[in-house]
Amino acid sequence: MIGIFDSGIGGLTTVRAIIETMPGYDLIYFGDTARTPYGTKSRKTVIRYAIENTEFLIKKGAKIIVMACNTASSVATEAIKERYDLPIFEVISPAVDLAIASSRGMQIGVIGTRATIKSGIYEKKILEKNGAAKVFSTPCPLLVPLVEEGWVTKPETAMIVKKYLHPLKTRQIDTLILGCTHYPILKAVIQRKIGRQVTIIDSSVAVSKTIKTYLGEHPEIEAVLSKNSRMDFFVSDITTQFEKTAESALKRKIALSHVEI
Amino acid sequence: MIGIFDSGIGGLTTVRAIIETMPGYDLIYFGDTARTPYGTKSRKTVIRYAIENTEFLIKKGAKIIVMACNTASSVATEAIKERYDLPIFEVISPAVDLAIASSRGMQIGVIGTRATIKSGIYEKKILEKNGAAKVFSTPCPLLVPLVEEGWVTKPETAMIVKKYLHPLKTRQIDTLILGCTHYPILKAVIQRKIGRQVTIIDSSVAVSKTIKTYLGEHPEIEAVLSKNSRMDFFVSDITTQFEKTAESALKRKIALSHVEI
Repeated sequence: MIGIFDSGIGGLTTVRAIIETMPGYDLIYFGDTARTPYGTKSRKTVIRYAIENTEFLIKKGAKIIVMACNTASSVATEAIKERYDLPIFEVISPAVDLAIASSRGMQIGVIGTRATIKSGIYEKKILEKNGAAKVFSTPCPLLVPLVEEGWVTKPETAMIVKKYLHPLKTRQIDTLILGCTHYPILKAVIQRKIGRQVTIIDSSVAVSKTIKTYLGEHPEIEAVLSKNSRMDFFVSDITTQFEKTAESALKRKIALSHVEI
Repeated sequence: MIGIFDSGIGGLTTVRAIIETMPGYDLIYFGDTARTPYGTKSRKTVIRYAIENTEFLIKKGAKIIVMACNTASSVATEAIKERYDLPIFEVISPAVDLAIASSRGMQIGVIGTRATIKSGIYEKKILEKNGAAKVFSTPCPLLVPLVEEGWVTKPETAMIVKKYLHPLKTRQIDTLILGCTHYPILKAVIQRKIGRQVTIIDSSVAVSKTIKTYLGEHPEIEAVLSKNSRMDFFVSDITTQFEKTAESALKRKIALSHVEI
C-alpha cells in the first residue's frame, strides 16, 4: 500500500491528487488530528511526530511513505530517510522542480506555515537548482485555521490573504508555491489577490506526478503495491469536522478509524 | 504548590490573575503546547490529555490543581475529580457565579471554543443556579489562532469578532462570559463590538477569587502550600512564540522547561 500521513486533514488534497494521477492503488492515510497543527510547533517535536506516524503506516503495511505535510517534509525528511529503508516522498522537491520548470523570470514566491518558512528549505532547494533565482517567502499562519473553519469565501479571509501576499506582490513574483496542503483549498482567492499573471504551484499535484514517474522507473517497487482502489483512513482524534472536510475534499463517503499514537 | 495546566499559553491569564489576587504562592504551570489547541478536538481526547497533565503536576508536587483551560474544564472535570483525591478547580463554575451575581436582566451570552460550546456546560450550570436565565452561546474558533498570532488590534480581528458576536448582540444580552482563557486578551475589541452596556466576565479572574475563598475556608490545605513566590513553567513543546507571549502576559522574564508527555 501507499502510506500517506499529514498533521490532520490538509493531506487529503494529496490523496485526491494521487487518486487522479494514478487511480487504482490502495492507500492508507493517517491524519494526526489529536496533535494538529504542526506548523506552529518546534522542529524537534515535529520530527518526533513524523517518526511515530511513519512507524504506524509501516506497521499497517505501507511499502512507500508520502509525507503529505509540508511542515513535516521541511524539518523531518532527513530523519525519516535515515531511519527507514523504503521509498520516502516529501512534498517540497516536487513543488520546487515544477516551479522552476514553469517560472519565466525566476522570481519565485513561497507561502507556508511558520515552521516551514522558518526552515528555509524551499529557498535552499530552489537555489540549488537555479542559483540565479530570486526567492521571496512569507509565513501565513492564519490560513490553516481559516480553511479548517471552512471560511473559504468569506471577505475576512480575502482581506487576510491580501495582507499576507502584499510583500510578495510588491516583489513582482511570477510563480507562487503553495507550501502547505491546506492552501489549494484557497487557490481561487490566492490567485485573485496575487494576480492572474502569477503561476500557482500546488505541491499535492507535484508530488503525485513525482510518485507516478518513480513507480514507472522502479517496477520492483510498483509490483509490491496492491491495486484494489482501497482506501483506509486513520486519525488520532475523530471529530465531526474531519469527516465533513474529508468527504467534501474526496467527494465520497469514507470509513474512518481511530488510533492512539 | 498550586498546579495549573492549560492547552497552551492561554492559561497564563489565569496565572496572572492568581498572582494578583493572592501573591506569594508557589506555582507550577504546564502548557501542553505540543498538542495545542484542545478546543477543536474530541471529548475523549481532551479527557485523556487532562488526565496526563494532572498526573504530571501531581508528580511535580502540586497539592491543588487548577484546570485553566475552559475546554478541559468543560469536558474533563468529572473524570479528573473521580480519579484524584485533591482539590480540583475548574474555570466554568466561578465564571457562572460571577455572571449571575452581576447580570441585571439574566440575558447571558457565552463565547468559547467549539468543544466548550458543544458541551453545553455553561448553559447547564447557569440554569441550575437560575432557572429563569436566558443563555445564548456561540463558538468563536478563530479567536484562539488570532490571539496566538498577536493580531489583537488588527481590523480583520475586529471584523471577525463583530461577526461572531452578532447573534448575541441581536439577543440583547446584558452579560457576556469569556469562556476561553485566550479571550481576555481581546477584551477591548469584544467590549467595543458587543456594546458598553454589557458586563464582561473573565473566567481567569473569577477562578482566582474562588481559590482564594476556598483556601480561607480550608486552612489545612492552605498550610501545605509553599509561599516563596516561585514559578515553574513546563511546556510539552518549546516555541519562541510561547516565551514571547508568556513574558508579555506576565510582564517578567520566565524560566521555561521542556517535558515530553
